[in-house]
Amino acid sequence: MSKKITTIGEIMMRLTTPGHERIFQADSYMVNFGGAEANVAISLAQLGMQAAHVTAFPDNDLGEKAISYLRKMNISTTHIYKTSGRMGLYFLENGTMQRASKIIYDRFDSAFAHFKGDDIDWEKVFENVDWFHWTGITPAISQHAADLLLKALKKAQEKGIKISGDINYRRNLWQYGKGPLDIMPELIRYCDLIVADKSDFENCMDIQVSDWADACFQAKKDFPKIKWITKTKRESISASHNKLKGVLWNGNEILQSKTYEITHIVDRIGGGDAFMAGLIYGLLHFDEEKALEFATAASVLKHGIPGDANLVSENEILDLVHEKNVGKLLR
Amino acid sequence: MSKKITTIGEIMMRLTTPGHERIFQADSYMVNFGGAEANVAISLAQLGMQAAHVTAFPDNDLGEKAISYLRKMNISTTHIYKTSGRMGLYFLENGTMQRASKIIYDRFDSAFAHFKGDDIDWEKVFENVDWFHWTGITPAISQHAADLLLKALKKAQEKGIKISGDINYRRNLWQYGKGPLDIMPELIRYCDLIVADKSDFENCMDIQVSDWADACFQAKKDFPKIKWITKTKRESISASHNKLKGVLWNGNEILQSKTYEITHIVDRIGGGDAFMAGLIYGLLHFDEEKALEFATAASVLKHGIPGDANLVSENEILDLVHEKNVGKLLR
Amino acid sequence: MSKKITTIGEIMMRLTTPGHERIFQADSYMVNFGGAEANVAISLAQLGMQAAHVTAFPDNDLGEKAISYLRKMNISTTHIYKTSGRMGLYFLENGTMQRASKIIYDRFDSAFAHFKGDDIDWEKVFENVDWFHWTGITPAISQHAADLLLKALKKAQEKGIKISGDINYRRNLWQYGKGPLDIMPELIRYCDLIVADKSDFENCMDIQVSDWADACFQAKKDFPKIKWITKTKRESISASHNKLKGVLWNGNEILQSKTYEITHIVDRIGGGDAFMAGLIYGLLHFDEEKALEFATAASVLKHGIPGDANLVSENEILDLVHEKNVGKLLR
Amino acid sequence: MSKKITTIGEIMMRLTTPGHERIFQADSYMVNFGGAEANVAISLAQLGMQAAHVTAFPDNDLGEKAISYLRKMNISTTHIYKTSGRMGLYFLENGTMQRASKIIYDRFDSAFAHFKGDDIDWEKVFENVDWFHWTGITPAISQHAADLLLKALKKAQEKGIKISGDINYRRNLWQYGKGPLDIMPELIRYCDLIVADKSDFENCMDIQVSDWADACFQAKKDFPKIKWITKTKRESISASHNKLKGVLWNGNEILQSKTYEITHIVDRIGGGDAFMAGLIYGLLHFDEEKALEFATAASVLKHGIPGDANLVSENEILDLVHEKNVGKLLR
Amino acid sequence: MSKKITTIGEIMMRLTTPGHERIFQADSYMVNFGGAEANVAISLAQLGMQAAHVTAFPDNDLGEKAISYLRKMNISTTHIYKTSGRMGLYFLENGTMQRASKIIYDRFDSAFAHFKGDDIDWEKVFENVDWFHWTGITPAISQHAADLLLKALKKAQEKGIKISGDINYRRNLWQYGKGPLDIMPELIRYCDLIVADKSDFENCMDIQVSDWADACFQAKKDFPKIKWITKTKRESISASHNKLKGVLWNGNEILQSKTYEITHIVDRIGGGDAFMAGLIYGLLHFDEEKALEFATAASVLKHGIPGDANLVSENEILDLVHEKNVGKLLR
Amino acid sequence: MSKKITTIGEIMMRLTTPGHERIFQADSYMVNFGGAEANVAISLAQLGMQAAHVTAFPDNDLGEKAISYLRKMNISTTHIYKTSGRMGLYFLENGTMQRASKIIYDRFDSAFAHFKGDDIDWEKVFENVDWFHWTGITPAISQHAADLLLKALKKAQEKGIKISGDINYRRNLWQYGKGPLDIMPELIRYCDLIVADKSDFENCMDIQVSDWADACFQAKKDFPKIKWITKTKRESISASHNKLKGVLWNGNEILQSKTYEITHIVDRIGGGDAFMAGLIYGLLHFDEEKALEFATAASVLKHGIPGDANLVSENEILDLVHEKNVGKLLR
Repeated sequence: MSKKITTIGEIMMRLTTPGHERIFQADSYMVNFGGAEANVAISLAQLGMQAAHVTAFPDNDLGEKAISYLRKMNISTTHIYKTSGRMGLYFLENGTMQRASKIIYDRFDSAFAHFKGDDIDWEKVFENVDWFHWTGITPAISQHAADLLLKALKKAQEKGIKISGDINYRRNLWQYGKGPLDIMPELIRYCDLIVADKSDFENCMDIQVSDWADACFQAKKDFPKIKWITKTKRESISASHNKLKGVLWNGNEILQSKTYEITHIVDRIGGGDAFMAGLIYGLLHFDEEKALEFATAASVLKHGIPGDANLVSENEILDLVHEKNVGKLLR
Repeated sequence: MSKKITTIGEIMMRLTTPGHERIFQADSYMVNFGGAEANVAISLAQLGMQAAHVTAFPDNDLGEKAISYLRKMNISTTHIYKTSGRMGLYFLENGTMQRASKIIYDRFDSAFAHFKGDDIDWEKVFENVDWFHWTGITPAISQHAADLLLKALKKAQEKGIKISGDINYRRNLWQYGKGPLDIMPELIRYCDLIVADKSDFENCMDIQVSDWADACFQAKKDFPKIKWITKTKRESISASHNKLKGVLWNGNEILQSKTYEITHIVDRIGGGDAFMAGLIYGLLHFDEEKALEFATAASVLKHGIPGDANLVSENEILDLVHEKNVGKLLR
Repeated sequence: MSKKITTIGEIMMRLTTPGHERIFQADSYMVNFGGAEANVAISLAQLGMQAAHVTAFPDNDLGEKAISYLRKMNISTTHIYKTSGRMGLYFLENGTMQRASKIIYDRFDSAFAHFKGDDIDWEKVFENVDWFHWTGITPAISQHAADLLLKALKKAQEKGIKISGDINYRRNLWQYGKGPLDIMPELIRYCDLIVADKSDFENCMDIQVSDWADACFQAKKDFPKIKWITKTKRESISASHNKLKGVLWNGNEILQSKTYEITHIVDRIGGGDAFMAGLIYGLLHFDEEKALEFATAASVLKHGIPGDANLVSENEILDLVHEKNVGKLLR
Repeated sequence: MSKKITTIGEIMMRLTTPGHERIFQADSYMVNFGGAEANVAISLAQLGMQAAHVTAFPDNDLGEKAISYLRKMNISTTHIYKTSGRMGLYFLENGTMQRASKIIYDRFDSAFAHFKGDDIDWEKVFENVDWFHWTGITPAISQHAADLLLKALKKAQEKGIKISGDINYRRNLWQYGKGPLDIMPELIRYCDLIVADKSDFENCMDIQVSDWADACFQAKKDFPKIKWITKTKRESISASHNKLKGVLWNGNEILQSKTYEITHIVDRIGGGDAFMAGLIYGLLHFDEEKALEFATAASVLKHGIPGDANLVSENEILDLVHEKNVGKLLR
Repeated sequence: MSKKITTIGEIMMRLTTPGHERIFQADSYMVNFGGAEANVAISLAQLGMQAAHVTAFPDNDLGEKAISYLRKMNISTTHIYKTSGRMGLYFLENGTMQRASKIIYDRFDSAFAHFKGDDIDWEKVFENVDWFHWTGITPAISQHAADLLLKALKKAQEKGIKISGDINYRRNLWQYGKGPLDIMPELIRYCDLIVADKSDFENCMDIQVSDWADACFQAKKDFPKIKWITKTKRESISASHNKLKGVLWNGNEILQSKTYEITHIVDRIGGGDAFMAGLIYGLLHFDEEKALEFATAASVLKHGIPGDANLVSENEILDLVHEKNVGKLLR
Repeated sequence: MSKKITTIGEIMMRLTTPGHERIFQADSYMVNFGGAEANVAISLAQLGMQAAHVTAFPDNDLGEKAISYLRKMNISTTHIYKTSGRMGLYFLENGTMQRASKIIYDRFDSAFAHFKGDDIDWEKVFENVDWFHWTGITPAISQHAADLLLKALKKAQEKGIKISGDINYRRNLWQYGKGPLDIMPELIRYCDLIVADKSDFENCMDIQVSDWADACFQAKKDFPKIKWITKTKRESISASHNKLKGVLWNGNEILQSKTYEITHIVDRIGGGDAFMAGLIYGLLHFDEEKALEFATAASVLKHGIPGDANLVSENEILDLVHEKNVGKLLR
């Protein structure tokens, strides 16, 4: 039986300008859906895991469309709710060459932001689940969302499920009266694995960072359940050319993956989520070193896939790890 | 020197599914912009009049895009403001055959809804203006919008400008605590011309309607400045086939236009605004009977133009009025 | 708890020329999936029923794509198998005006044609199922397919499930050495409801038809389990304009639905399957007369939806039955 | 051995707005090629005849593209010349509903207008040719073109080839100093068959027309080689709905075809050329009455095909003549 | 109050093949508009300057479309004229990899080439203008165009406006009987700033060039008003990969910008015009060194924008100058 | 008179996902046609040679479409046959970045596989032919195809025509009961030139390869007619970035071309066929060294052209050989 992942979080409709057009130029948009947590679930479903996502959508045709997207991607929609409120949106202009990519969020007052989830049967949500993943975006959206997440974390811990959190500090969110330090530490306490870089440590964990390794050791002291801390190191030569490697602190030392040159980038949105999914898969199936290489290679491949989600198989990722069939023609 | 129209109101980004696809099916959207009042201004600009529109857009690339749309359509953007708030949106699934068209509005909390317009120099807005047009959508959006409109109406009246109002009662709006009868009668009092049918009379003017002509005479009593009341009569055989005629009460009698068979409909959104623009143009340039025929023919032609706006010339409309070149091939 | 339908049959990838282009002209194709039985299941899923489909796809990315289509459409894929063999295809040129539509089938040697289904747990397939639907296309494909279907029918009958069969005689199939009269009568014996017209009666049931009602009574004698026989009557004024009504013989008399004018046809493929789905839904939820009107209205709406499947809700169909909102603009 | 047609004339690149967009709206164009005479040749090639066309294109990639179009359409390009000068263009906005279609020609100074054809081996051009077709557009373009055509006509007559001319008077052409009456009568003298209506008789043959039949008899007197005179009668209810019939005067009487309702028109450009091709094919293979019905049915089907050329087979046309398979689904 | 630029020159409709298709392959074209001078005006309008352009278009829907393009781009169209003549066109095949880009011009006999501009009120054209920009393409088109430009230069100088000229020698133009040395020296005499490289110096200024700096000093002697001479140095590794730097001679010394690697080029047309606009903006707002860096960075960004015009903001350019946010994801 | 090439082999319809989409994502396909041998013929037709191809297509609209493709590409279709059987297909997902390209073949039971070619007049096929080219794909398809090819080779040799064979071993073919060593050696015996690398030598010529040069000398011994053996050396940094050089053994020594960096790859399918065509052209017109450089440059340019066929001119290839105009803008 394959392993099972559950995620929770908002999913937005993504409206992308075609080709290399700017928002100012575009007379049509491509429709996709994305959310940091669901992106992870979809990647893992592609890798053969069972995957479920908990969220709320507006009770209209846009909500139906979003649900059908999840079904298409093989995500269980048993715990998707249809409520009042609007569909969160984001408009994306993919950068190219030296020009940066640009996102305009339009997500306030979404169905998810107003979702209390009183009817959720958490016992059922976490039945047979092996791993639960959340991100710092959810508690930044609304008090309801923060409360919902806390309930989920408690139940997940109670059932002995592995928990990962992508801290993902976003200055533009957190508009409902609470700050990240009011909320995040309590949530992070449940995590076995977190994604955190300087800004996350400082804003969400109250850890000042001069050296990332030191910060990791400090985090372990403050949040003793944490077993792994991870991040990617991305160098942006241009929007079409990045360098990427993965880094994993395992309580003792820092592991580093190969560094990849990623040129001719198609779509970098979701690259971090692809890394996260790869790492979860790796930690469930491989040793730490291989897990990290797997995660990084997964993230690299994501940059060539249009949309938020990483639609690649285990074999395709392993081929890249082993430098096999790279860019070849497979008949 | 050509005549000058000024309009005020929200403009939304319209996201339309391609071809005959349902929202559930669409993986891309066509981008347009529309708003009942701006649609009128654009039609009149196409007819050769000077046209200006007063509104607010969010201060981001979507707002810039919207402004560039108005400029392209030859609308003066001198009195367009960029403020905080979001871009109002609507999602459109064009009906076909017996299937109805469907709109999902996503317009709450828009830049326009929050716009106070304190900086507007109304003297300048109405300089050399011949006609001012508004609709009942604006005061239904927010108290700010209702206040803004009232200021505009006062100044327009003060300057002796002709005023038309499309009552356009929408049950789903009016969510800010006031009802239409709290607000609309005061605004209607400024009008020379209104568009009103049964639901408008009853909900916005407190006139019960068993007979439309009687209601018109009653309206004249209650709102003595009104000179004309108009409406279109549309029969919907299917989403692809309508019948349409225009009706104009001129204080004495009811004029009726020819009835048109409109088959193979491309896009009916804005058909009413095209009628309104045609009527304003007609009343400024022709006698009442010709004005009404002109307005109805204008509306008919709109049904063949993709987008909200009626992009036809005076000659094209007059040709249809005179049954000349109908559907021919012009070399 | 909503009712549950199960269907069995081949699903082909449909490659449609864009717009009104001929196959000779087309430099791209739109991708859809369709199969007479799955089309019924999808229609019923849209109407809120639980739906499952049994089939086999090739074990490659095209098969994965097909499965994801079914998931998107809310069809349970628990009993979808991935085997060797190719994806059945059909190329479609949608007719327009007086020009007929044209299909080139390319379905021989498909995964489904070679599928034996030895691993199917029929008990599980039919768990909690209320209705089982099949068509005469399946036994025409291969001996394996005919055998598979017979097994399914036996189990369905054993479990007291209602059974419908769309006889659907296709001269171009039946190439594996057996003729329809060798195979079909045994299968028809299990049916409560069949779709049959002259050609079906004669070729698959050995009943000569001068009068359809007489043929129905004869069918009842030969296949005593049959309770209903149905068909649609379509008049083709052009590819863009048909007339359609539904007919239902209920053992006693012939019921007839309203006749619809269907103009501006978008896509007539699947119109019969939409009727069938509507009738199944209707017989499960309404009386016979309403069921027939519901089925016919469902089929009418299908003609406006691109693709094989009828993506309309119960309310939309009932509105058409009641001549409400026909072709209107719903905000 | 199939019959052989040769035609002569300019071919323009056609730039069509997508969907129902106006030129003012279009941000892309569809590329086609068309010319009244080549359209006839292509129709006849589709019907199985050998077909060749004589013309000149600019010696650049646009010319290459045009030649490849003719090859694709199975037209012999042995007598296509590449010269200096530009590619003639026309911009097309397809009408819809009551709105007329609109063409902007941009054809002056084309390679064809400057083409003298001194190197043409006319003996070879007309080897084994059964029918030669020209139109009044060619002599209206330039003196060179008129001279070229005269040479062709002389050689064709010398070799006993049947000759047809579509008079096709266009007021906007004829800008090189000669008028139609200076040029056309000499050319018409070679024709067995002409297409002519009132405007053609008056402007190109100096025959005043009160009654078409009378004009035909007068034409026979003035141009004794003429055996048939033909035209179509088109009634334009709208750009999407025409009525059409064909008329043929055979020296004695006027034959008339069935009248067709053509609704849901896709592209009417080339409808007359399709009629002409059908008539040539008909007169070569059938009796006069059947030829006329064949020609009219061919023209009807053209209205459903995007582009200038009629891409239908003999069987498809005969089916329509016999009211067989009209608008059906052919598997 | 922002600074004001005025430009003069022809604007052509640009027809670009989609994707990487060759002209031979393309069955559709993307529509844009471009002209070296208007491209400069549009860039400067995007940077927040007031911008106006003087030109003539054909009096048809193509002309209207071109005007609407300028309005959309925020260019004042007060001095746009509609005359007889055709729309100048150019067909573009964007190169990729080692394959060069290819332009087929089709611009002879355009409305602009025949435009005399007798009605232009030059006083009004240059009211409040800070900078006037022209290119050597205009006087190469026709005697009328050369005369028009001379009038403009005289008035601009009279009003103390800064003047720049992009010499831009094109061998294929200059077909009206005059050579560049007959015309250009008189025009260059009015310039404060010119763009000139070897071919320009030699063909338009009669200055033989072995060393560019020497040529600049010689130019200063011959044309004493010149204050700056500029050019870009482009190295073409492939159509997808160029190196670019800007060079500015300021009367004393040669300044050089950073050299940029430009990979993954989307559209290099207008790269020089973007540089020119950046330099004008820079010289009006910054010191010479910063102006040059600004100009070069502006040109780099243009290579990532489809179409002729550089649609980037001052901030985006400054970010690149300061190596900030290069290719990042801006939320 | 230009030289003439004849090729033989299957042509498949190629269905390519748009942009960088995976097959799992694609909802439309681009339609092309390709076959290793026909690709060579088309390249050579573009270079100005006469070219003909021998094959069979299904007798339906897909076959007609395929034939029209060949005509468009200027390939003589005199020896194309229409038979029963299906159109061979292949589905292509173009790789990007590190992700490999992927082909799903669907070519079994094609018209070509069943084609016996009994009616072919081989004397006529090889009239005036200078070069005959085949590949190892043909004899791998079916016994009929192997027999057909053998007949062709005998006649070609009899007439003294130069013969080239691209060994092109494909493990997935060869399913009709014979292995490559049963068939290939007899066919290779006729060749003057072969393309062969390690896998080809070993599987089709029974030559074990430790060193390619040694294998060439051995091949010469076993197949004494062979004069040249060639291959390309491709290094795949990623799907978007390859390095390529050509290698030619001429009986004495190994010639090597320049090595090209190919970045920003658009479509690598047919790169080998473009090399082959370039080499044939080169050996017919240049010396061996120039021929090899020409072939390699031709292959490089193919990587920038969408579709299977290399649509470049002799001049464009020579420019690249001479490093002239590389990636420039040609006006």
